[in-house]
Amino acid sequence: MAKNIQVSATIIIIGNEILSGRTKDINTSTIATWLNKLGVRVQEVRVIPDIEEVIVKTINEVRKKNTYVFTTGGIGPTHDDITAVSISKAFRLKYEINKEAFKILEAYYKPGEFNEGRQKMAWTPANAKLILNPTSGAPGFIVENVFCLPGVPSILRSMLGGLKNKISGGKPIISHTINLRTVESEIAKSLTLVQDNNKGVEIGSYPFFKANKLGVAVVIRSVDQSKIDICNSQILDFANQKNIRVINNE
Amino acid sequence: MAKNIQVSATIIIIGNEILSGRTKDINTSTIATWLNKLGVRVQEVRVIPDIEEVIVKTINEVRKKNTYVFTTGGIGPTHDDITAVSISKAFRLKYEINKEAFKILEAYYKPGEFNEGRQKMAWTPANAKLILNPTSGAPGFIVENVFCLPGVPSILRSMLGGLKNKISGGKPIISHTINLRTVESEIAKSLTLVQDNNKGVEIGSYPFFKANKLGVAVVIRSVDQSKIDICNSQILDFANQKNIRVINNE
Repeated sequence: MAKNIQVSATIIIIGNEILSGRTKDINTSTIATWLNKLGVRVQEVRVIPDIEEVIVKTINEVRKKNTYVFTTGGIGPTHDDITAVSISKAFRLKYEINKEAFKILEAYYKPGEFNEGRQKMAWTPANAKLILNPTSGAPGFIVENVFCLPGVPSILRSMLGGLKNKISGGKPIISHTINLRTVESEIAKSLTLVQDNNKGVEIGSYPFFKANKLGVAVVIRSVDQSKIDICNSQILDFANQKNIRVINNE
Repeated sequence: MAKNIQVSATIIIIGNEILSGRTKDINTSTIATWLNKLGVRVQEVRVIPDIEEVIVKTINEVRKKNTYVFTTGGIGPTHDDITAVSISKAFRLKYEINKEAFKILEAYYKPGEFNEGRQKMAWTPANAKLILNPTSGAPGFIVENVFCLPGVPSILRSMLGGLKNKISGGKPIISHTINLRTVESEIAKSLTLVQDNNKGVEIGSYPFFKANKLGVAVVIRSVDQSKIDICNSQILDFANQKNIRVINNE
């Protein structure tokens, strides 16, 4: 198993709607894919409820263990949106009106529409930096290494572009997938050998069932393309020896 | 915020494929929905990598804080399937061939097909109870309050039916959703009042965008139907006063 965790992140999904099963989280996939390209490896995801003391405790636990922490959810105008106040408490900062956020929101809404509910979205931990929101006005914010984003997937996605320059990652993590027409048990031994011969590379094996046929996706991940190439050719070699069809290799 | 956490669970998603963003987790939603009906509240989800020391540490941390722990993933035949050996280490149990699992798998495969890779799936922590797998033979297992399930969603789903009698939950958690044609900021203040008047009930507010129209789903959750009914009528009252259209209420 690769332990090349240089620049790391933890994602905190804040939201009862995920814990209740009502909503399926897709933000992890969006953030993780984006971070991998910037050379940041996600080492953990936690889904936690909208409870202040849980948010405070979780943030203070993970922010020391990671280069970056990303939170999603809880930055809207309603009573269950408690991320900003919780982050303030975690960092022992004042929870106050952020003048820049206030100006952005005031300009975003039509005259008379910047009501009390919406004004709540201008409150952040003191001196938080803002993450601009090109979709719906209300900004996210950054305190030290903690980046707070909204829970609505389309809005979150639109905000990542503006964040790129704030992330100092390592080498991008490259992922290569070989789909084989086989079952895992047929290749388990050979694949173990490839993993043993290539310690620094992360090799995963994932069975799938598509168009009524079984297959296995072998995923090779590393920051080093030449190491991926070596694993790839070793896997193609044993597939060839075993007469296993390579469905695709990309 | 409701703190009526009597019977609780944490779900541990073991899998690099979720952390890399390649795969979106849908098992959390399946398990959480099923547990809610049995009166078990999911208080946390953690997604962790296929690294033995991380699995051992995480399991030992959460199993003491929860009535139940569910893991998904890592119980197949390949080198990256290390859940059973990790759970053995967490509980300081021998990792050994489970005779019952061996018999099940031997009977499941055709003669000559129960190869070395497949035999790995018969290994569990000593004296683990099995979770039968009506889809693909290979069982899950239980050690004390930790239930280990596979990562493939369709197989996982098929195994939950046989587990029902092993879970002693509290009252089922009832969920009621009111969809309103409004935006969150319009109802934030009124909804806060309803939450303040109904402390033991969990009220969530989730904006949505469907068929080019904005709306808000208000979700009320409680073990007590009469408390849900009270919240529901208070929400319908303010919607009526504000001329907000109720899209549906179920």
